[in-house]
Amino acid sequence: MWKIAVDAMGGDNAPKAIIEGALQSLERHQNIHITLIGQEDEIKKYLPKEGVDRITIVHMPEVIETCEPPLVAIRKKKNSSLIEGLYMVKDGRADAFITAGSTGATLSGALFYTGRIKGIQRPALAPMLPTKNGHALLIDCGANAEVKEDYLVQFAQMGSAYMELVMGVDNPKVALVNIGAEDEKGTDLYRNTNKKLKEEQTVNFVGNLEARYANSGQADVLVCDGFTGNILLKTMEGTAMYLLKVIREELTKNFFRKMGALILKGAFKEVKKKLNHDEVGGAPLLGIDGCVIKAHGSSNPYSFSMAIRQAVAYLD
Amino acid sequence: MWKIAVDAMGGDNAPKAIIEGALQSLERHQNIHITLIGQEDEIKKYLPKEGVDRITIVHMPEVIETCEPPLVAIRKKKNSSLIEGLYMVKDGRADAFITAGSTGATLSGALFYTGRIKGIQRPALAPMLPTKNGHALLIDCGANAEVKEDYLVQFAQMGSAYMELVMGVDNPKVALVNIGAEDEKGTDLYRNTNKKLKEEQTVNFVGNLEARYANSGQADVLVCDGFTGNILLKTMEGTAMYLLKVIREELTKNFFRKMGALILKGAFKEVKKKLNHDEVGGAPLLGIDGCVIKAHGSSNPYSFSMAIRQAVAYLD
Repeated sequence: MWKIAVDAMGGDNAPKAIIEGALQSLERHQNIHITLIGQEDEIKKYLPKEGVDRITIVHMPEVIETCEPPLVAIRKKKNSSLIEGLYMVKDGRADAFITAGSTGATLSGALFYTGRIKGIQRPALAPMLPTKNGHALLIDCGANAEVKEDYLVQFAQMGSAYMELVMGVDNPKVALVNIGAEDEKGTDLYRNTNKKLKEEQTVNFVGNLEARYANSGQADVLVCDGFTGNILLKTMEGTAMYLLKVIREELTKNFFRKMGALILKGAFKEVKKKLNHDEVGGAPLLGIDGCVIKAHGSSNPYSFSMAIRQAVAYLD
Repeated sequence: MWKIAVDAMGGDNAPKAIIEGALQSLERHQNIHITLIGQEDEIKKYLPKEGVDRITIVHMPEVIETCEPPLVAIRKKKNSSLIEGLYMVKDGRADAFITAGSTGATLSGALFYTGRIKGIQRPALAPMLPTKNGHALLIDCGANAEVKEDYLVQFAQMGSAYMELVMGVDNPKVALVNIGAEDEKGTDLYRNTNKKLKEEQTVNFVGNLEARYANSGQADVLVCDGFTGNILLKTMEGTAMYLLKVIREELTKNFFRKMGALILKGAFKEVKKKLNHDEVGGAPLLGIDGCVIKAHGSSNPYSFSMAIRQAVAYLD
């Protein structure tokens, strides 16, 4: 039985969406027990009166808001659901912790309260991107805005290990995200990292990859600094949102088109599913000594349950 | 009569697509004369036998390939269409030069042979992005992978001037592309640039903007280093390509869906038009002492003619 700790107060739709997601997960996975951490009164509102098996509540009065400066928040709000979850992983009361709360506070809190794996210089946030033939891991995506070459090499190693061990990808292809395919492209940091990755025996390095091929399936692990990874991920989300909006506008312009759109309703559902970040769940914090998963801030019940599924995959 | 020089040999579809684009432009703009630069025999193959008014050919035997190291290419291939075009702008034989050739060679060639505007530290490549209500200028997008704060401030000024004077946007809103909206987000470079832009009286700085809002129309000018800009632009292209591919696959899965797609043919055409980089034309090299426009490497006749239209807008 895996002990899953959940930050009931984190995310735009907390606690409702989080708790509903947790309840969905209990049905999906018979081998988990969930601890909901947060304000007990709030949490109880969304739980069935008659109680639920395999759910415990741990009351924590404080809530870390997304807008708070992370370093201040994690020092001042020790009685928050976020910090308590990280503690629970640290001391073994939980096998995994999932939060949709502040990314910054999760990262610095995990470093401070859960701790790094020995030898890892910087943990990294590593979301999954949809690709033509499955998924690719983007590492890092915002934990480390400024990095050194050795951090990037470690990101490659951690990402490769994750894809192999958790996602079952055989000998994962690792690429360095860059502004051109040629070895000499990019900044000094990227040129030197390219060189180091080429010499690195522990990863299957396939060279630089332009951002336009991120979804192409040419690589299973996309390595970059957190600033670049954040730009890439957010641009992807923004472009998809923008494009779907333009399509929706065009398809509802007149009655005739609305009829066509109606016929294609199923097709669009499939499209949405293929693109959907909901399916992917959350981003693991690789390099942290324990399983900590950051779910999307705007998680709905389904996507949050997918983040829990990811934790279960990690543990299994 | 504007003198427009065109690199007939640059781009994936040269010289055919380039020359067809030039011919389209002559019809569209009655106030231009076009000089096609390149291998005369090749060029003549795609021109009507009876000759065309307002077209001249300047023979240049050499061609700079996209895969060549730019700095070597611009020094060795002085008799290339690319270098000759940059020279023509420099010495006034042309009012503008448009090329779909190597970005690197265009940039370094323009610096070396055309020269900078006095006071400008680094020229920048500034493509247009489609937005909800028009276009936004992304500056820089690959000319300067490594930048200093002052370069970014100058990018803001150049971008703002371009949007105001060429695109007719009143008091353009300038944003700094960053990994969060808060002033303290990002690297030292971005934090300090944010501070400087706030104090800068010459631009209407609206603060940091996350990459996911690049298409939102919240800013008319998006400032970032060339590495970040390239990642953003390429991710945008890649995501749009990926999404449209997924949609196409779904819409052609069975007869029923194909019928629906047929009804919506017009709608999808409109969507494509709204997203299309073709409409936007090329990216001006801002900061260069003359009008040099980089068209997309995969330019087709229409998109190349749009890059010429952009030059005409600049000159008019």
